[in-house]
Amino acid sequence: MAKDNKTAINPRRDEDYPIWYQEVIKAADMAENSDVRGCMVIKPWGYTIWENIQKELDDMFKATGHKNAYFPLFIPLSYLQKEADHVEGFATECAVVTHHKLTKNSEGTLVPDGELDEPLIVRPTSETIIGATFSKWVNSYRDLPILINQWANVVRWERRTRLFLRTAEFLWQEGHTVHATKEEAVDETIKMLGVYRDFAEQVMAIPVITGEKSESERFPGAVSTYSIEAMMQDRKALQAGTSHFLGQKFAKASNIKFQSKDMQEEYAWTTSWGVSTRLIGALIMTHSDDNGLVLPPRIAPAHVVFLPIYKTDEERDTVLAFIEEIRTEIRGLGRYHERHIVADVDDRDMRGGEKNWSWIKKGVPLKVEVGMRDIEKNSLAVLRRDNPELKKDFINRDEFVKNLHATLDDIQKTLFDRAKAFRDENTRTIDDKDEFEAYFTPENKDKPEIHGGFALSHWCGSVQCEDELKDLKITIRNIPLDAKEEAGKCIHCGAPSKRRVVFAKAY
Amino acid sequence: MAKDNKTAINPRRDEDYPIWYQEVIKAADMAENSDVRGCMVIKPWGYTIWENIQKELDDMFKATGHKNAYFPLFIPLSYLQKEADHVEGFATECAVVTHHKLTKNSEGTLVPDGELDEPLIVRPTSETIIGATFSKWVNSYRDLPILINQWANVVRWERRTRLFLRTAEFLWQEGHTVHATKEEAVDETIKMLGVYRDFAEQVMAIPVITGEKSESERFPGAVSTYSIEAMMQDRKALQAGTSHFLGQKFAKASNIKFQSKDMQEEYAWTTSWGVSTRLIGALIMTHSDDNGLVLPPRIAPAHVVFLPIYKTDEERDTVLAFIEEIRTEIRGLGRYHERHIVADVDDRDMRGGEKNWSWIKKGVPLKVEVGMRDIEKNSLAVLRRDNPELKKDFINRDEFVKNLHATLDDIQKTLFDRAKAFRDENTRTIDDKDEFEAYFTPENKDKPEIHGGFALSHWCGSVQCEDELKDLKITIRNIPLDAKEEAGKCIHCGAPSKRRVVFAKAY
Ligand SMILES: [Zn+2]
Ligand SMILES: [Zn+2]
Repeated sequence: MAKDNKTAINPRRDEDYPIWYQEVIKAADMAENSDVRGCMVIKPWGYTIWENIQKELDDMFKATGHKNAYFPLFIPLSYLQKEADHVEGFATECAVVTHHKLTKNSEGTLVPDGELDEPLIVRPTSETIIGATFSKWVNSYRDLPILINQWANVVRWERRTRLFLRTAEFLWQEGHTVHATKEEAVDETIKMLGVYRDFAEQVMAIPVITGEKSESERFPGAVSTYSIEAMMQDRKALQAGTSHFLGQKFAKASNIKFQSKDMQEEYAWTTSWGVSTRLIGALIMTHSDDNGLVLPPRIAPAHVVFLPIYKTDEERDTVLAFIEEIRTEIRGLGRYHERHIVADVDDRDMRGGEKNWSWIKKGVPLKVEVGMRDIEKNSLAVLRRDNPELKKDFINRDEFVKNLHATLDDIQKTLFDRAKAFRDENTRTIDDKDEFEAYFTPENKDKPEIHGGFALSHWCGSVQCEDELKDLKITIRNIPLDAKEEAGKCIHCGAPSKRRVVFAKAY
Repeated sequence: MAKDNKTAINPRRDEDYPIWYQEVIKAADMAENSDVRGCMVIKPWGYTIWENIQKELDDMFKATGHKNAYFPLFIPLSYLQKEADHVEGFATECAVVTHHKLTKNSEGTLVPDGELDEPLIVRPTSETIIGATFSKWVNSYRDLPILINQWANVVRWERRTRLFLRTAEFLWQEGHTVHATKEEAVDETIKMLGVYRDFAEQVMAIPVITGEKSESERFPGAVSTYSIEAMMQDRKALQAGTSHFLGQKFAKASNIKFQSKDMQEEYAWTTSWGVSTRLIGALIMTHSDDNGLVLPPRIAPAHVVFLPIYKTDEERDTVLAFIEEIRTEIRGLGRYHERHIVADVDDRDMRGGEKNWSWIKKGVPLKVEVGMRDIEKNSLAVLRRDNPELKKDFINRDEFVKNLHATLDDIQKTLFDRAKAFRDENTRTIDDKDEFEAYFTPENKDKPEIHGGFALSHWCGSVQCEDELKDLKITIRNIPLDAKEEAGKCIHCGAPSKRRVVFAKAY
């Protein structure tokens, strides 16, 4: 449909994937960089996707017994000092508040004033402040479990930032739970990993591999860290969510103790788990094509957009009235997966071609044109965005309404199946070292083409092998939960190995 | 029901209102102070109220054409410098970020490092950063109006803080809109004031007076500021929301210009409007009684709580099964005002009296006890929390389910009517200066009893009269939108006045 066989997004994915990614965001009007270093502005089309992520995940958290709460944005330096004393690999790139006032100097210039006795850190994550609070909430086994989630903004001072994927400030949720027994805390960790998997696969149509991270990739201080890993269209992995079993380490640091049923004082067992606006990056890179964003219906800000086509004011009235009737019937269908169907009308004063393309680039699942001839035929010109050919179908109006929920479900399924097929095509079981290295080596080293994928290969468990593979930019994404015990040899050093892990280049 | 005629909350409202307020929050387990100066922890029962406020208001914002977006937490100092140069009364108590790193010194102590070239301010409000962004979004009249809302945390370095009413960090929404004409921007300002009024009255059951603030109480830089004002049970006013018409002042400071239909370059007209977690303070002080929190159903975290009563395991099974059946029927009723009905069961292992009182103190609209005898009679022991006598009614089980939505609506209406009657009883039209001053003077000056209320009196419009009345702690709350023109004399100086305003002591 684009002129001269050009695509709406330039460059295409195969030409320059990182720039393609930026251009998709721009073309869909999802977000932009702000004047504040590393901080983004999330525009309505991008933010509504985040709101939909929140609604769906929040329902799942609540269905599994969690409640939301809110903790301070600031963390006293002394809390982080305590953590730094206990935890290796503690991150230190963060925003430090040192003053509580601005004062005009003699030249009328505002300068920081009112120095704080103790600097405050803008939360990079809330383990310490929530731990300090939980230590006051927990006295007896009767107070357990504590199952809390927080939706919040966090700040990490990243050097190189990319919209959604890595920004200084980002939005996320962080679950924090406290349990009386190790077993219960481990179960919680795995349960929430499962919630993330179900959410990614069912709502975002992103197939993921659930598994445990290797020791070197663990959250600092965690006993074990689990992740969901997705494959992007450049065949790199993206870690889309993590769930940590923290053992008693954080309970000891925060002094979370309880009296057990048999009157013993014990340290509690804690977990934490989170996903962030990074998920939107994963969404874009999983489904979008060379004409822009493609959205699964369950997460799309709008399910349907009607574009009225007319020449005269009279025709306009007729067309808009016809559309209004359809929208009323759509409302009558009730909710689609708990959300009201959003069926918008775009009656902006702009060229038809431009308007048409704007919705293709925004990835709305169903774009529907309505003109006088369609009305005569009681038919609609429908474009399903999951069709890469951008082919219009002429569908009977009543059929369209009757089948709307089923059509949306079908788009959802098509996108998931396509993403899963892509991942499967680009996942290879490799046992030979040369083949392994060749798999991850681009032909064009200066400007690597899309290459590689996931390699299911044996690993001996040594950090040294992991480190040496990092020179090739290969990391262990995770050790799949469903990995079978199978004798083999480490793909790198040849030492004995019990199971295959997922190797990939990653975001 | 409380022993010895004591109330659940000590002190009572008439004994010490400020302490009563704190005790209600504590007894309902809504929030607590954190270790971080002036920042609160909002606990699940308090936070769920905020979530319900968000859901309801957000629907109203979207129904009036607004979309949500997200802007950076940090504001460059230079943005505030520009504002300080243009705006009188610019606030300077804020959190200043000066470093982006923590480094361990030779003693292993973390110290701020990596000084920023330009300090960043944690947003106290987002006019400047949003204005800078809008200036890039607006080119032509076709880009207007821009109707954006942000849900966010903000920080103002308050000296004296009180949970929900005044905290250093608080949660809020801030609407920011841009229009091509003055008329449209004024209409928007008033429309959103109306949304706040409808929300406060219909959802929170808080009657409010809508009106314009006097010049001295305007948002710095605004052309006009409007507010909704509610009366608390100590007869003080609480400003529960504001809507500002900003004229072209902020557009000029942020350079928001557009090309009009007739190709002229013009500055745009902007508005902003907001409500915050302060609304929860207003909710508490409007409805609660000496036995704790009282919640209007439309904002309550739970609508119904069932308390099972049993002696043996066998009885427990019977009672819980009976309750489950009722809960299933309740789910079958569908949504209550767009929300699923929340009907919880409290089967915690604790003394019955304590458990009973915990729900009274939490203000759940309907508390339902179910024991073996109730099952025999097919009846339920229902306590409507809006009944100050805490009287139990025995209601047929089927009737209870059938009438549930109507009962909740009736509680909602009762709370609104009661609050409105209270406000009306404590609102007086006063034309005599002595009466006016006596009205606002407590008998006990050391520890003022609850006194005064709203006075509808004439005001000449002078700042001097306003200032002098501040010595008596009296402020003009607002000039009601529906105030009739009426000749009179200023209650303070006797100069001619055209209309009555609302005077009160205030939070
Ligand atoms: Zn090895
Ligand atoms: Zn006067």
